[in-house]
Amino acid sequence: MKPPTVTHDLYELDQDWNDEQRAVMLQIRKFVDQEILPTINEEHNNEVLRKDLIPKIGQLGILEMLAEGSLDPVTYGIVCRELERGSSALRSIVSVQGSLVIGCIRDFASAEQKATWLTKLGTMEAIGCFGLTEPDFGSNPAGMITRAEKTSSGFVLNGSKCWITNGTQAHVAIVWAKLDGVVKGFLVPTNTPGFTAQSIKGKWSFRTSDTGMLFLSNVEVPESALMPGAKSLGAAIKTLNNARYGICWGVAGAARGCFEEARQYVIDRVQFDGKPLASHQLIQNKLAWMAAEITNMELMSKRLGELKAAGRVKPYQVSLAKMNNCRKAIEVARVCRELMGANGIHSEYHIGRRMVDLETVLTYEGTEHIHSLIVGENLTGIPAYS
Amino acid sequence: MKPPTVTHDLYELDQDWNDEQRAVMLQIRKFVDQEILPTINEEHNNEVLRKDLIPKIGQLGILEMLAEGSLDPVTYGIVCRELERGSSALRSIVSVQGSLVIGCIRDFASAEQKATWLTKLGTMEAIGCFGLTEPDFGSNPAGMITRAEKTSSGFVLNGSKCWITNGTQAHVAIVWAKLDGVVKGFLVPTNTPGFTAQSIKGKWSFRTSDTGMLFLSNVEVPESALMPGAKSLGAAIKTLNNARYGICWGVAGAARGCFEEARQYVIDRVQFDGKPLASHQLIQNKLAWMAAEITNMELMSKRLGELKAAGRVKPYQVSLAKMNNCRKAIEVARVCRELMGANGIHSEYHIGRRMVDLETVLTYEGTEHIHSLIVGENLTGIPAYS
Amino acid sequence: MKPPTVTHDLYELDQDWNDEQRAVMLQIRKFVDQEILPTINEEHNNEVLRKDLIPKIGQLGILEMLAEGSLDPVTYGIVCRELERGSSALRSIVSVQGSLVIGCIRDFASAEQKATWLTKLGTMEAIGCFGLTEPDFGSNPAGMITRAEKTSSGFVLNGSKCWITNGTQAHVAIVWAKLDGVVKGFLVPTNTPGFTAQSIKGKWSFRTSDTGMLFLSNVEVPESALMPGAKSLGAAIKTLNNARYGICWGVAGAARGCFEEARQYVIDRVQFDGKPLASHQLIQNKLAWMAAEITNMELMSKRLGELKAAGRVKPYQVSLAKMNNCRKAIEVARVCRELMGANGIHSEYHIGRRMVDLETVLTYEGTEHIHSLIVGENLTGIPAYS
Amino acid sequence: MKPPTVTHDLYELDQDWNDEQRAVMLQIRKFVDQEILPTINEEHNNEVLRKDLIPKIGQLGILEMLAEGSLDPVTYGIVCRELERGSSALRSIVSVQGSLVIGCIRDFASAEQKATWLTKLGTMEAIGCFGLTEPDFGSNPAGMITRAEKTSSGFVLNGSKCWITNGTQAHVAIVWAKLDGVVKGFLVPTNTPGFTAQSIKGKWSFRTSDTGMLFLSNVEVPESALMPGAKSLGAAIKTLNNARYGICWGVAGAARGCFEEARQYVIDRVQFDGKPLASHQLIQNKLAWMAAEITNMELMSKRLGELKAAGRVKPYQVSLAKMNNCRKAIEVARVCRELMGANGIHSEYHIGRRMVDLETVLTYEGTEHIHSLIVGENLTGIPAYS
Repeated sequence: MKPPTVTHDLYELDQDWNDEQRAVMLQIRKFVDQEILPTINEEHNNEVLRKDLIPKIGQLGILEMLAEGSLDPVTYGIVCRELERGSSALRSIVSVQGSLVIGCIRDFASAEQKATWLTKLGTMEAIGCFGLTEPDFGSNPAGMITRAEKTSSGFVLNGSKCWITNGTQAHVAIVWAKLDGVVKGFLVPTNTPGFTAQSIKGKWSFRTSDTGMLFLSNVEVPESALMPGAKSLGAAIKTLNNARYGICWGVAGAARGCFEEARQYVIDRVQFDGKPLASHQLIQNKLAWMAAEITNMELMSKRLGELKAAGRVKPYQVSLAKMNNCRKAIEVARVCRELMGANGIHSEYHIGRRMVDLETVLTYEGTEHIHSLIVGENLTGIPAYS
Repeated sequence: MKPPTVTHDLYELDQDWNDEQRAVMLQIRKFVDQEILPTINEEHNNEVLRKDLIPKIGQLGILEMLAEGSLDPVTYGIVCRELERGSSALRSIVSVQGSLVIGCIRDFASAEQKATWLTKLGTMEAIGCFGLTEPDFGSNPAGMITRAEKTSSGFVLNGSKCWITNGTQAHVAIVWAKLDGVVKGFLVPTNTPGFTAQSIKGKWSFRTSDTGMLFLSNVEVPESALMPGAKSLGAAIKTLNNARYGICWGVAGAARGCFEEARQYVIDRVQFDGKPLASHQLIQNKLAWMAAEITNMELMSKRLGELKAAGRVKPYQVSLAKMNNCRKAIEVARVCRELMGANGIHSEYHIGRRMVDLETVLTYEGTEHIHSLIVGENLTGIPAYS
Repeated sequence: MKPPTVTHDLYELDQDWNDEQRAVMLQIRKFVDQEILPTINEEHNNEVLRKDLIPKIGQLGILEMLAEGSLDPVTYGIVCRELERGSSALRSIVSVQGSLVIGCIRDFASAEQKATWLTKLGTMEAIGCFGLTEPDFGSNPAGMITRAEKTSSGFVLNGSKCWITNGTQAHVAIVWAKLDGVVKGFLVPTNTPGFTAQSIKGKWSFRTSDTGMLFLSNVEVPESALMPGAKSLGAAIKTLNNARYGICWGVAGAARGCFEEARQYVIDRVQFDGKPLASHQLIQNKLAWMAAEITNMELMSKRLGELKAAGRVKPYQVSLAKMNNCRKAIEVARVCRELMGANGIHSEYHIGRRMVDLETVLTYEGTEHIHSLIVGENLTGIPAYS
Repeated sequence: MKPPTVTHDLYELDQDWNDEQRAVMLQIRKFVDQEILPTINEEHNNEVLRKDLIPKIGQLGILEMLAEGSLDPVTYGIVCRELERGSSALRSIVSVQGSLVIGCIRDFASAEQKATWLTKLGTMEAIGCFGLTEPDFGSNPAGMITRAEKTSSGFVLNGSKCWITNGTQAHVAIVWAKLDGVVKGFLVPTNTPGFTAQSIKGKWSFRTSDTGMLFLSNVEVPESALMPGAKSLGAAIKTLNNARYGICWGVAGAARGCFEEARQYVIDRVQFDGKPLASHQLIQNKLAWMAAEITNMELMSKRLGELKAAGRVKPYQVSLAKMNNCRKAIEVARVCRELMGANGIHSEYHIGRRMVDLETVLTYEGTEHIHSLIVGENLTGIPAYS
C-alpha cells in the first residue's frame, strides 16, 4: 500500500513544460504554500483582506512580465492555476491587475498612459480596478447607464459600478462609460474629486478579496483620460476574454487543490475496521471521475493557450472553456467536500473555502447560461440571448 | 403577467393537511419569518449563536407535545420542514432536543429518568445533547471507544465525543459507551465532575449552531444513570432513525426556502431589455426541475410519515429518504444560488447560507454512501459496507 | 445471504391498494407474464406487430370499464404501470384506445356517437386512433395544417397526420382539423373514401407497435361526424393530458421491470472470486438510487391520481410528472442496461427493449422541454415557448 | 443567420494535423460517407452483416500500415474516430483486426507466425479474432476456464469464448488458455478440427457486426501455435490496452457524428412560428454542452496518442480515457436523440443506431466501474476490485 507515484498530474502535462514554465510553476506553488495557505482560512472566516499581500504579489515578477508583454499565454495560465490552488480570490486579484488593467492598458491606452501606469502596475506599487459591471445588469454590459459628457477641458463622468474587485484598494480605475451612446474606456485616478468607492461587506464567498462599488459623481477628467483604442464595448469585451482565459486555468488549480486534499484525507483516514476510506469502491470511483475532469480542464486550458499564442483564439472558444471548467471545478470541489464528511465543513481544511469561493467564479465574467448561448450562436448562427 | 397562484406547493399537499397540521405549519412559518430570517444571515457571517432563541423554541410547544407523545409524525414533519425553511441549524437544535434526546428518553429511559427530564426538556428549561459520534469514526458507531466501567456505586465513564450539536449548551447529555464490550446509553448531567465540553469554532457551515466536543474523564455516575432500555447500539440507531425522519422533512423546507427566494428574484430582476430573468427558457427549465424535486422530497417524507404513524416504517425506508432528500435539497440550493448570479453570494439573500448549512446536513446522520449501502443490503441481501 | 423480502415496492404502496386495485394489478401482471414477455423481444427484433393481442386486451375488461366510466384514476394508473412493465408499446396501445379515443368520445362526443362507438371500443371489437400530430409540428398542435370545410351535407377533410399509434389498424380515427381557423374534432371511420393510412417502418423503438401516417384526401363526412364538445384545441389538449396521466404511471412500470431484472441479475451473477456482482458497493449504490427514483415516480403518480379523482388535477401538475417520470424511467433503464454488461445488449433480457422503447415515450406527448416550460409558466406567470 | 463556419471542430484540432493525418482523415471520411452511411441503418434494422465490406476495409491500407508498424498512434486514432463516425460496429471490426490481432502478433508472435499471418491480415485476406472473454467472466480475464494441455506434438485446447467480434468470420483466432495455471496465447486456424464458432443472434446493439461464441473441443495444435511472447495474462492485457486506445478516439467520432446530425436538424427544422428549433435557448445550451464534451474527448485522446508515441503511456491513463470518453459519447448521443424528437427514433437518421451501438462500447473492454477502480488504485495505492 505504498503512496501513489502519480497523483494529480495524471496525464503528465507538468512534465512537459519548458524550463521557464516549470520554474514559474514551482515559484508560485511555493508562494501559495508559504504565504497563503497557512492563514487564509482564518482570514476567510473573519472576512479579512490581507494588505501585506499586495507588495508580495508584485515581487513575484509575473505582473511585470505581463506589463512588458514577455509572458507567454501558457505560462500565464500556469501562474493562474497555481495561484488559484491557493485561493480563487487571490487569483482574481492578479487577474484584475494583470488581464483587466495591465492588459487593457497595453491594448488600448495611449503611449502617455502606458508610460504613467504600466511600470507601477507591474510592481503593484499602483493597484488598478476595472469598472464595467453595473448594479442592475450582471452579464449584460450593453445595458450600461454610466455616462461621459464632453466638457471644454475633457469629460465629466457620472454613474456607478458594482462587484468591482480591488475596488476600494485601487489607485486607478478603468471606467467604462457611454459617450454619445457609445461605450468608451477612461483611466481615472481614484483620488479624482467625485470618485468614491465602498466595500461590499457580508459576502459569504470571496471574503478575503475586496469587492467594491464605485460611485462617480461629476468626476472631471482631462481629455487624456480617454483610452484612444477603447472605442467601443468591443474593447471591454476583448479585455474580459483575456481575463476569462486566466479563469479557465485558475479553476483547474482550485480543483487540483481540493482533489489533492481529499485524496490524501481518504488515504489517511483509517476507520474502526483498520481500512482507510480510500479502500472503498464508492470513493475510488469518485476520485477517478475527478481525475478525469481535472485532466479535461487542463487539456482544454492548454489548448486554449496554444491557440492564444498562435493568435488564433476566438471568443466562443474561451466561452466554452469558461463554461466547462467552472462547472467542473465546482463539481469537483463539492465531491471533495463530501468525501471529507463532517471534517469537510471545518476550516482546518481548505476544500470548503475553495468551494464557496468557486461560487463567485462560477457566475462572474459571464454565467454558464450566457457562455452556452455564445457557443450556441457560433454553432447555429442564431443569437438566442433573450 | 400576473403573479402565479400556485408556487411552491405544486402538488397541493399543504391544502390537505388537517386543522392541527395547518395551524402548526402557520405558527412555525410565522416564527421563522419574525424571529429567524431578519437576523440570521448576520449571525451566520459572524459565527454567533443566539441564546435567546432557546426559550422561544420552548414556547412553540412542539417539544412539549413530543415529550408527551401527542404529536403525530406528519405534523412533526411539517414542523421540521417549516423550521428548516428558516435554518438547517435551527431545525437541528430541535431535532436533537426532540428526536434524539426526548425521543430516546421516551423510548429507553426509566420512569424516574423520564420524570426528571421530560418536562424540562419539553419547555427547553433543560437542553439535552446526544453523545454518540466519536472523533475518528463518523458514520460508524460500531467503532466506539468511549468506555463505561462498573463501580461499586454505579459507573465511571471515559472517552470523548465529537460533532455534538448543543454540546456546550446542554444540561444533560445522553452518552453512549461500551460496558463490557456492549454499547449502553447513560443520562449524564453536564455538571458532573470530569465532564467538559468545548465548542468547535471555525466552521463555515452551521455557524449559528453550537457544535461541541465532549470529554469524559473519570466521570462517575450512579447506577440510575443507565437507561434501562438502551441495551445495545440498536437503541442508539433506532433513535437516530427517528431524527433522520425529521431531516427528510427538514431539507425539503430548506429547498422550498431557496426555491421561493430564487423564483421571486428571477421574476423581479428586470434586465436592460426590459425582460425579467424569469422569461428565459434556461431559467424556467431549472425552476421546473426544482419544483419536481421538491415535490418528490415532500411526497417521500409524507409517505414515510404515514408508514411511521402506522408503525410500519423500516430503517432502510428512512435511509432511502435521507439519501434522496438531502441530495436533492442541496442540488436545489446550488441551482438557486446560481440563478442569483453575483447577488447570490451576498448575505442580503438567504440562499447562500441555506446552501452551506445543507453541506452539514448532507453528511451528518449518515452519508449518502452509507445510506445507499443500507438500502443496497435490503435490496440484495448482501452487506457491502467495507 | 437470503433473498430480500422487499424488492421493488420499497415504500409499500402496493400493500395499501384496495381490493379492486390489487385484483387488477395481479390480473395485468399475470397477463404480461404469460402473454407478453415470452415472445416480445423476438417480435421487437423482427419488427412484428402481434394482432392476436388486440382481442386479448379487450378481454381484460379494463377498456370496458373506461368506456363505462367505472374505473377510478388510481386503478387505471396501476393498469398502465403493470402493462408497461411488459412493454411501453403495449401500454401505448391501451392509452390510445382508452385515454385518447374512449376518453375523448366520453368527454366530447354526441349521444349518437357514443352509442355507436363506446361499447365496441371497450371490447376492442373496434380500434381507434387519435389524429392530432402532423409531420412538421411535433409538440405544437397549434401549427395544424389539416383543414375541414363545410359542405352542403357535412364536411370535407384534407391533410395528413403523423406518428399515429394504431394508425393502420384503426376502424375509427379521431381527426383534428381546422374549420374556419378553429380546431375541431371529427370521428371518421377509416373506410371512408379518401382516408388512407400507411405504417411507418424502420423504427428502432416501438417496433412492436403500429405507428402510422394518416392521409385525408377530400374525405367527406356527414355533419354528425363533428364531435359537438370538441370545439377547440383545448379539447384535444384536455384529452392528451388524460393520456399523459397514464404515461406517468406507465413509465414507473417500465422502470420497475428493468430494476427487477437487473437486481436479480446482479444477485445471480457470480464472478470468478465466488462473489456476486451485487456485493459491490458501486452496484448497490446504483440500485439504491434507482429504488429512490422509482419510489418517487410512483408517489408522484399516485398523488396525481388522488388529485384527479378529486377533480383537482391541473395540466401543469401532469406536465411535471410527465417530465419527471419519463426522465427518471429512462435513466433507470440505462443504468440497468449497464449493470448487465455485455448481456445487457442481448434480447435474452428485457431491459434493452424497454430502454429503447422508453426513448419514444420520453419525447412523445410533449418533450421534457415543452413540459418544463408549461410548469415554468405556472411558476413565473410568463410564457417562454419561443 | 448564415451557416456557422466552425462546427464540430471547435478547438481546431483538425486544422493542426500533419499532411498524412489530414489525408487519412479525409480518406476514411469519404469511405464512411460513400460505403457505410447510405445503407447501414437498414442493415442494422435487419441484423445484416455486410461481407463485401471486408475487402474494402483491406483496401483502405490502414491495416497494412499497422501490420508494418508504420502508422503513428495519433493517425491511427484519427482513423478510429472517422470510422466510428460511421459505425461503432465497423470501427470494432478494424480494432479487432488491427489492435487485437495484428497488434498482438506484432508484439508477441514468433517470426514464423508473423510471416504467415501479418501480410494477409493487413489486406484482410485473412480475418482474425481475439478469444479472451469467457461466458461467465466479463471484465475479469483472471477467471479464465479455457485450458491448454501439453501433448507430445503440441497442445490440446478445451474451453469456450464469448462475445468475440468477427468470431464466425475469422480465419485465425488468438486463443488465450491456461497452461499449467498460467495464461498463454495461441494462434489457432479456425479450420482446425474441434474448433467451432456460432453467431450470437438477437442483439439489439451491434447488429451489423458479427459477435460469436467460440467452442474448442480437443483442438490439437502444434507447438508452433504458442506465441512465444505471450507468456502471461499481461500480454493479453497489454493488447487490450492498445485496443482501448482506439476506442477512446472512436467514440469521439460517434459523438461527432451524432452532434453534426442533430445540429443540422435543429437548424433546418422550422416550427409553425417560422423559427427553427435551434433558436431555443434550451437547445443551444445542450449543443454547447455537447461541443464541450466532444472537445474534451478529442483532447484527451490526442494527449494519449502523444504519450503513446513517446512510449510513455500507462494503462491507467488509457482507463481514464476509456471511462471518460465512452460515458460522454453515449450521453452526447442520448441528448442528440432527444433533440430529434419523434424523428429521432426512426432510422432515417443515424443517431439512434449510433446510440444503441455505443451501449456495446460502453461496457466492452472494461466497464466504467472497472476502469474507475484501475484509476482509483493508481490514485490511492489500494486495489478495491472486490
